Amino acid sequence: MFVLGIDPGLSRCGYGCISRAGATTRLHAVGVLTTPPSEELPARLGALQGDLASLIADLEPDVVAVERLFFQVNVRTAMSVGQASGLVLAAAARAGCEVVQYTPNAVKQAVAGYGAATKEQVQRMVASLLGLAEPPQPPDAADALALALCHLAMAPMAARVQAAVKR
Amino acid sequence: MFVLGIDPGLSRCGYGCISRAGATTRLHAVGVLTTPPSEELPARLGALQGDLASLIADLEPDVVAVERLFFQVNVRTAMSVGQASGLVLAAAARAGCEVVQYTPNAVKQAVAGYGAATKEQVQRMVASLLGLAEPPQPPDAADALALALCHLAMAPMAARVQAAVKR
Repeated sequence: MFVLGIDPGLSRCGYGCISRAGATTRLHAVGVLTTPPSEELPARLGALQGDLASLIADLEPDVVAVERLFFQVNVRTAMSVGQASGLVLAAAARAGCEVVQYTPNAVKQAVAGYGAATKEQVQRMVASLLGLAEPPQPPDAADALALALCHLAMAPMAARVQAAVKR
Repeated sequence: MFVLGIDPGLSRCGYGCISRAGATTRLHAVGVLTTPPSEELPARLGALQGDLASLIADLEPDVVAVERLFFQVNVRTAMSVGQASGLVLAAAARAGCEVVQYTPNAVKQAVAGYGAATKEQVQRMVASLLGLAEPPQPPDAADALALALCHLAMAPMAARVQAAVKR
């Protein structure tokens, strides 16, 4: 199962693609999509839409894991994060991927074993789980990998629950 | 000049396309794009993205006028409106249209002559300005036409200001 985690953002949209075979988790791609703050908002969103479609077409993930948004303290960035998240969810759905959303707390719980873990603890765990010497940079890329790792941790349980409900 | 007004929304995304030649304002298209609340959010956003691209390709507007969002009282719908607005701005930019945003107060001021006009007053003015017997239904469609009418009212002044700045 190829899982692409995406941390939505307008200036920096983090992504990380991993797969698991048996006990081995492999890292396939990690990075950020960026748009220049000097450009107008519609042009930036248009460029991000194109970049997201290309990224998903290149990586062909089975599942796209996206942060579930809540209203944040920073109202100014919350709007652009909301707009970027709309593009991410639409791009994943149009590519035919399964789309899952996880709250920041669920990600921390799944990756660091603790829902109130700090960003640094989560990033160190991302590096450790993927056998990297250092946490991936920038932090948006590490956050995207944490989303993908969260899905790999949660998917078996979700599948068992669904099977139990069907019985 | 063909102006397409869009009132972003996930359940109902209003649109209205008008043009002006001399003193005559013509209505070319008005309606709503809808997505079923029974479907998952990513599928709804994916469908809306496709519908917006088709709408803009069909109507070939010179300008797309979109509501400028602020954080609203209703936090639950604010997120989906933000996601929908991201899709609208991106679709318009990707189609090569000029994209303009107006606040609800600017629209009321331009269309009803009064920034604190009620929704009903604005909708009656939309009908009157376009020579319609009744305000267009649903209200989302009338709101979209109000955005387009606002741009027709504001564009000459904006052009004069820009020319003056260049002098």
